Amino acid sequence: MISKPYLLFLGEAKDELAIKTAAGIRFWRPEWCVGQIFFESAKAKLDLPEMSIKQAIENGCKTMVIGVVNAGGVMPESWINTILEAINSGLNIASGMHTRLSSIKEFKDAAEKNNVQLYDLRFNEQTFKTGSGIKRTGKRLLTVGTDCSVGKKYTALAIEKAMKDHGMKASFKATGQTGVLIAESGIAIDAIVSDFISGAVEWLSPDNADNHWDIIEGQGSLFHPSFAGVSLGLLHGSQPDKFIVCHEPTRTNMRGVENKLPDISEVISKTSELGKLTNPNIECVGIALNTSNMSNGSEDLKKEISDKYSIPCLDPLKDDLSGFINLIKK
Amino acid sequence: MISKPYLLFLGEAKDELAIKTAAGIRFWRPEWCVGQIFFESAKAKLDLPEMSIKQAIENGCKTMVIGVVNAGGVMPESWINTILEAINSGLNIASGMHTRLSSIKEFKDAAEKNNVQLYDLRFNEQTFKTGSGIKRTGKRLLTVGTDCSVGKKYTALAIEKAMKDHGMKASFKATGQTGVLIAESGIAIDAIVSDFISGAVEWLSPDNADNHWDIIEGQGSLFHPSFAGVSLGLLHGSQPDKFIVCHEPTRTNMRGVENKLPDISEVISKTSELGKLTNPNIECVGIALNTSNMSNGSEDLKKEISDKYSIPCLDPLKDDLSGFINLIKK
Repeated sequence: MISKPYLLFLGEAKDELAIKTAAGIRFWRPEWCVGQIFFESAKAKLDLPEMSIKQAIENGCKTMVIGVVNAGGVMPESWINTILEAINSGLNIASGMHTRLSSIKEFKDAAEKNNVQLYDLRFNEQTFKTGSGIKRTGKRLLTVGTDCSVGKKYTALAIEKAMKDHGMKASFKATGQTGVLIAESGIAIDAIVSDFISGAVEWLSPDNADNHWDIIEGQGSLFHPSFAGVSLGLLHGSQPDKFIVCHEPTRTNMRGVENKLPDISEVISKTSELGKLTNPNIECVGIALNTSNMSNGSEDLKKEISDKYSIPCLDPLKDDLSGFINLIKK
Repeated sequence: MISKPYLLFLGEAKDELAIKTAAGIRFWRPEWCVGQIFFESAKAKLDLPEMSIKQAIENGCKTMVIGVVNAGGVMPESWINTILEAINSGLNIASGMHTRLSSIKEFKDAAEKNNVQLYDLRFNEQTFKTGSGIKRTGKRLLTVGTDCSVGKKYTALAIEKAMKDHGMKASFKATGQTGVLIAESGIAIDAIVSDFISGAVEWLSPDNADNHWDIIEGQGSLFHPSFAGVSLGLLHGSQPDKFIVCHEPTRTNMRGVENKLPDISEVISKTSELGKLTNPNIECVGIALNTSNMSNGSEDLKKEISDKYSIPCLDPLKDDLSGFINLIKK
């Protein structure tokens, strides 16, 4: 467990998607967040007080969380001084980057000197087996996406909450650094050695009671040229009984690359087809529409999509999710 | 470059597939191999003189290569003493396991004391970007499989050789530990952090001349529940113009798991369908049949398969490969 509350570091965030780690913690764990810190060039911010490191400490802050991501997860030069100042001021640091905090000598030395912790959430000491493909007991739902960063984690967390509200047994299973920060457990699958992707998910979601649901956070997209391998290993290791397709209707290009977004129909058919390898009964039970960037028309669009696919289309952050739950229970 | 010649270590090899690293080096680089060493319980051996470590050194051996694999790539207790004896006798050690030789303190200390090298081929210090999906210049051929360990590497090496014999420009690109040992370059893709699978392959096979072919060694199978994620990331990063399906017709179950082998037709259609994401012109140009376990009927079977799919079906270790080359050239 990481000492709380947190100061969320946004660096020079290039857009809203870049601060999804900070925004996720802010949204799901508001009681853990004391403030935010960012550079002048930042293009995205949170609805939290802006604070210097000194002010954050005066407000009881214990840990600065790197709440901004960049493709590749490398530590930019421009962040070094701020992180070093935080360490030297006595804050712990938590990061989900591929670059380990402790691999940067200045951080390591300063952390030792100031007796603070460096949390590298993308890494864990657990060793995994290669996936077996053997069917496990208990039930599983996976959130998949038409792209990266479309709402797979929020959808999974919202479904976990809705299932519990309906008196069902459900556990959110985090597979990315933000999810791990929110749940304080889980595995950042994209940091696992690739031989063990599906094996790590088998470990993350082991045998369970017949009426228990693991709600597994999806990663990437089967249609994303950078990350489809991770998405497929995660699908095979999850062996989902049910899945929900997450979609952001204002997105035209896939995140960070030149490819167009796939149709929802393609995502449903490809996920079903490839998922059958480890669970022949895999079934799509809904479409989660992230309408946060839509100013109007979202109700019509949800109805249109729902009619087209004959399954509920809901915004997991705005709508009652009973429509999903009823199909999951079936 | 690793000092040669080699003593190939087979441990308690459980079957022929377990010694595929040793067999690959023996087959493609016979001039590098001085002998083999194995335990009494070994169920597979090579056609090489059996030697003790002492005898190998008397025969000029410089390096002992761990030529046997086990799922997960962990170092068994039972190997420790033999490897330690080799180090203490002055041999370098080369290994493609997930367990780093240098992570075992006894090995590290003994290597320092005896001034020998520990080569961990599954690791390299190269850092990668996430895949971009952007089309590169030059041509690429990928070998894919109905399963793991069906002949993807041998096929790629045989095609490289045949293309050169036909006066074409071709480079074998190794993606597994055995391939890296044979080519003395390349990347063990299954040891890459999963976020970078496709990016690493983009790095391995960069822009090249229009008439140059990279012949990329495939890994795993899109139908293998343990490794399909790796296979998909490799497919997307390779952006192959052409691919060849490798098949071992006597195999009934997929390696190490309970799943049945897919049909060749399924492998062709799924590879084409998923490969289109990064190369819309992807095309299957042949089927490589590994007939090494067939005592008879292989000619009939090749003809049957070739007729069924209207592309050449050849054993890359026995047949003239002009049939493949002609379709590659088209």
